[in-house]
Parts: sequence; C-alpha cells; structure tokens
Amino acid sequence: MSSASPTPAGPTPDVVVVGGGIVGLAVAWRARARGLSVTLCERGGLPSYVAASHVAAGMLAPVAEADAQERAVLTLGLDSAVRWPAFAQELQEASGIDVGYRTCGTLVVARDRDEAEHVDREIRLREALGVPVARLLPSAARRLEPALAPAIRSAFHAPADHAVDPRAVCEALVVACERAGVVLRTGASVASVAPGGITLADGERVPAGRVVLAAGAWSARVEGLPGLCVRPVKGQLLRLKARAGEAPLLDHVVRWDGGYLVPRADGCVVLGATMEDRGYDTTVTALGVYELLRDAGELVPGVLELDLEAAMAGLRPATPDNAPLLGAWQDVVLACGHHRNGVLLTPVTADRIGTLLANEDPGIDPAFAPSRFAKVMA
Amino acid sequence: MSSASPTPAGPTPDVVVVGGGIVGLAVAWRARARGLSVTLCERGGLPSYVAASHVAAGMLAPVAEADAQERAVLTLGLDSAVRWPAFAQELQEASGIDVGYRTCGTLVVARDRDEAEHVDREIRLREALGVPVARLLPSAARRLEPALAPAIRSAFHAPADHAVDPRAVCEALVVACERAGVVLRTGASVASVAPGGITLADGERVPAGRVVLAAGAWSARVEGLPGLCVRPVKGQLLRLKARAGEAPLLDHVVRWDGGYLVPRADGCVVLGATMEDRGYDTTVTALGVYELLRDAGELVPGVLELDLEAAMAGLRPATPDNAPLLGAWQDVVLACGHHRNGVLLTPVTADRIGTLLANEDPGIDPAFAPSRFAKVMA
Repeated sequence: MSSASPTPAGPTPDVVVVGGGIVGLAVAWRARARGLSVTLCERGGLPSYVAASHVAAGMLAPVAEADAQERAVLTLGLDSAVRWPAFAQELQEASGIDVGYRTCGTLVVARDRDEAEHVDREIRLREALGVPVARLLPSAARRLEPALAPAIRSAFHAPADHAVDPRAVCEALVVACERAGVVLRTGASVASVAPGGITLADGERVPAGRVVLAAGAWSARVEGLPGLCVRPVKGQLLRLKARAGEAPLLDHVVRWDGGYLVPRADGCVVLGATMEDRGYDTTVTALGVYELLRDAGELVPGVLELDLEAAMAGLRPATPDNAPLLGAWQDVVLACGHHRNGVLLTPVTADRIGTLLANEDPGIDPAFAPSRFAKVMA
Repeated sequence: MSSASPTPAGPTPDVVVVGGGIVGLAVAWRARARGLSVTLCERGGLPSYVAASHVAAGMLAPVAEADAQERAVLTLGLDSAVRWPAFAQELQEASGIDVGYRTCGTLVVARDRDEAEHVDREIRLREALGVPVARLLPSAARRLEPALAPAIRSAFHAPADHAVDPRAVCEALVVACERAGVVLRTGASVASVAPGGITLADGERVPAGRVVLAAGAWSARVEGLPGLCVRPVKGQLLRLKARAGEAPLLDHVVRWDGGYLVPRADGCVVLGATMEDRGYDTTVTALGVYELLRDAGELVPGVLELDLEAAMAGLRPATPDNAPLLGAWQDVVLACGHHRNGVLLTPVTADRIGTLLANEDPGIDPAFAPSRFAKVMA
C-alpha cells in the first residue's frame, strides 16, 4: 500500500494465515506440526469473538446436513467426522483443554404432516446417498429423547452425528498454537493478500512464503482476490442454560426444519439458527429470537424452562454451491467458504491444507477447487 | 455491629437515604432542597444498574393501572402524574439532562372476546372511580395508532397516561443531587438501619438525624426493621430498537392483559413485563422472552421487525396491599413498596417525604402508613 512500509522484523515465515477462527487456527497448528514457521493474523482478539466459530453450535452432522446437490460435501464431511475423535484427543493433549466432544447422536424430528413427509424424503435421500438412517416412530424417538414433545409426528436418528464445543476448540487451538510456536498476532486487520505476503490495514507488510486466507465470511473483504465468491449468511442463536441442580434437558442434538438444539456438558443448550441474507449485519432481532423459541418450545417444551444466557448472531461464509473453497488460487491458498459446516470440516481442512503447504499432494476433491468459479471470480 | 467501628468523618448529616434508585435519589434531592444535609448510600454504582428503576418501562399510568381495590393508590398516582411535568422540567434544568418525558397517552387493547369483556369491565370500573376513559372501536384505535394489528377486538384510550425514561431520570437525579450538595456514596451496602443512623456491611456506622429506607425490593433485606412487608416481584423486559433510518414504531404506550409497549424518543421500545414470585432471582428466561414477544407480536406485528437490544429483569418492591409504605415506622422513615408504580409515584413520594423530613405535616394518606401492617410487621 505504501512504498515506505516498515521493514519486517525477524525472518520471513513460511506461512501466514489470515483469520483466527477455528479453520485458521487449525490450519496454522497443522502447518506448524509439519515443521513450517507460521504467523497467524486476526483482526480481533484470540479467541476471536467475531468469528463464526465463536457463535457456532458445533454440530458434527454430515448425515443430518446431507443434501442431494452436495454429494462431495457429504463425502468430505464424513471424512472429517471420522477425524474428529483423534483431532479432539490430540488437541486436548496439546492444550490441556477439554473441547467438549460428545458422542451424542442426532435426532431429526417433524412437527406436522408436511414436515413428516419432508422427513420421509430425507430418509430416502440418505438411503440413496449410502448413509442410511433409522426411521423412528414418535414413541421410539421419545424413549430415546424424553424431552421431545408428545406431538412430534416422525423422526429419524443419525447415531454418528455428534457435537463439539467450538468455543472450547478455539481456546484449545490458541493454546496449542502458542505452545507449538505459531506467532499469533491479534488486532492485525489484513487489508490485502498477495502470493508473497499480506498488507495490514495500518500499512505494515508481512511477507511470507505462502499465504492462507481463512477469514470466513470476511474473506471477500480482503483485497487482492477480486470477485472471491464468499458471502455472509447471518445466523441468530440463543444460548440457554438449565438452572443449577437441574438435570440436563437433552441427551441428543435435536434438529427440525429450520432449527436445532445442541446440548453442552455444562448444562447449556445452543438453540439455532436463522438463515438470513443481510450482508455483514449481526444484530439480534425480535423475530429471530421469537421464531427460534416458538419452534424449539413446540418440539422440546422444556426449552422454555431454561434461562436465556445470551442472544447472538454470526456470519456463515457461503459460496454459490455451498461447498468450501480449498486450495490454491492465484497463488494464494484458500481455506474458506465452509458455510454451515466450518466446525465439522475443520480437521479435514487443516489436514489437507497442511499437506498442501508441505508441498505434498493433498488429494483435495476438484469439487472444492477455487478455480471452479474461475469465470465468476476472474 | 462492632464496638470498634471507625469514627465517622465529618459532621453528622441531617438525613441518610438508603438506596440509590429513582425514589431514593428523588427523596435525597428534595430533602437537600429543604436545606437539609443529606448522604445517600447505594450498594452499587450511581446510577444503579440493579435498581428496578434501571429496568422500569417508565409508564406514568394511574388510569390504566387503576384497580378497584386500590383507590388510594389511584388518588396518589393521579396526584403524582400531575406533578410529573414540573418535576421533569425542574430536573432537566437542574441537571442539563433530558429525562424523556412524553405526553404520548396510553391505549389499552384486547385481543379476543375474553379480553374485550375484560376491557369493558375496566372501562366501567374507571367510570365508577371517576376517571372515565374513551372506548374505541378497533378502527378508531388503529387510526390513532396505526401499528396495531387489524385483529384487535376493542380498546380504550387513557389520553393523560404518559411516559418518561427512568434511566434518564436517574442519571439526571444523580447530577442534580451532586450539584445540590448531596453526598453520594457508592459501593455502600447497608447492613442495618436504626433511628440514629445506619451500619454498612463493612461495619462502618453512619450516624444521621433521620434515616430514610428507599431500597426497593431490597428494603426487607436490611436489618433493623424485622418483618418489613416488602417482597420482590420479578419482571422481565426486552429493550427493542428500530433500525437506523426507520420511523418510530409507536406513538402511544400500548397495554394489554399481561404486557405493554412503551416507546422512547430514541426509537427504542420497551416491552414488558412478566410478574413472577421468584425471590431475588433476576435471570432472564426463555419462557419470559417468548411470551412477551408472542403477545406483543400479535397486537403490534411491527414489534417483530425491531432489533433486540437487551433482555433483562428487575424486582418490583411489592407490599401485601400493593400500596407503598410512606412515613415513619419505628422512628425510621420508609419510602418503599411502590410495586409497579415507583416511577409514577416518584414526585409525590419525594415531595411528601421531603416535607416530613423538614418536620412539616406531609399530609400522607393513612392508607400508606407503614403502621397498617403493625400486626404483621411487629
């Protein structure tokens, strides 16, 4: 930006990662484990309170999320779900922080006939995709999860769709990165990226062997990659909590058309989430909160007995085909566009991008190659 | 509490006021204006973020609040409502702060046939009490307040029931007290009161000519007046806000069975309030928030288009007959137990208690004499 930029202090790192959300941190950690010197720049603090991962519910739900149009995402999600237990274990050992990985399974429920028909179609879709799920009568669903309302019409069980606490994961990743020797720079807002380094908003240039863009929904706001196909999709969530001494409300993740409830080990329940195209707006609205509570209360009445700890909104980084952007493009490495699946896809993203940065073949499905939008993004 | 209490610094004040909510501050201000030296003790900061007045909606609604069983409260409320314009004006001049006094009037609306019958009874009650209100057809109500839903069944208009911003009032009272020379002590938690002074939680004794207890729902937690008949009634409220550039949603206060919406000059709308007997609990619950939004959204659909700024809860200081405790009892002056009417009753309370402290006859209706509960409170 300026010919009078300050001279960089210290040697040029092998890798600079832009973005301190769950994906950026995990990529930095994995790259460092490959022996690379890594600097990570985050515009806020670390952990970041603006990253989508700070708000995310933490579902690891490739089966429940499966979409007929996104078979490659399902495959990648299943791959990443398989990596999660070892990733969580390794991260806990590296950081000393419990990341809240829970093998809770997911119940997808229907409230009325329309939704029951939708659930039937979803069950058939999963059979066609090769990830069959168990259809449950309402009585069986309620035996499995007694908090469900008597009025539910039908359900299916995805027993391997689990959950993790994304805030705990990010905290642990920060500690693990620090211990591994990643240089973590907070308050470092990145104005632009280029193949040989980045420029901060204050004009400082940070040269690097490789640049990884992992700035979530804000990736498209960084200059240097005009037309990057990432847009924010707003999600509003509520953090609810059982009173001290009360039993946890839920044993499973419960999902329905338009929302979900994710239990945490500490008695918290995350209720999400709206899907809104409102740019970079993160206000919480009366309508969003009302509809979340209405729908959740109908399916899991005990939700309304919980305390409301916080209402918040985050921005999912969406792409035109809802699949992430993984790999080099214009000599910058992209690790963004994870949309609803950022937490789930973190281990596989970090592993593959780490491999790529080590100059090995990461074996990334061409479905995720940023060049698929070359015409749009050029 | 201790024979080794520190010697008080400075001369003994004529009056010490316990409690820095709207009532305590106004009493202190008025007592100082009478030439008395006044010290006010507040356990939190000033303005107090724990006082009910920090959360209160600020309705000045003696007519809408009128209850057949509480004729004395109606009379006192009408008296205080008449005092509000001059009180607000004087306070603004003394502090330089706009207290948000709005002559907006109040609409009381009914959603269904049951509520319409209730509204009919309320109209007849007000005729019997000598404060007639105007019955409105739904169409007329909607002409007056276009934000009302087409589905409302009936309404009445209380054109003299206005509103004020209690947070602004408290801010202004703090400044006015400071400028007038009231000694404001923050972080001063009062453990006990006695005719000759108070004792703080840290053991410090603050002697005073007279002691005024104005600690709202916490009055019953102060030692020295065993059996004081004040209990907390929890109210949950939401603070909503129109987006920048949007027109204000409401011109009037809108009330219904179980809730109300109070517009502020800055585009905020306060939506309240639950009535809950839960002791000193001030958590916000999913059910409270859900029911407030559901009811408000049904009557004023535009509410759901607003941003949610905050959800909060406060504690009304209730008495067995819902009338305040005003006057001396066991040689301590009480100015508490205002229940739902603390903001409304502030000017008359401050004027009457100020008169009492100046050793003149305050002319307080015996209906508010603390001695009416002598048998219970002894």
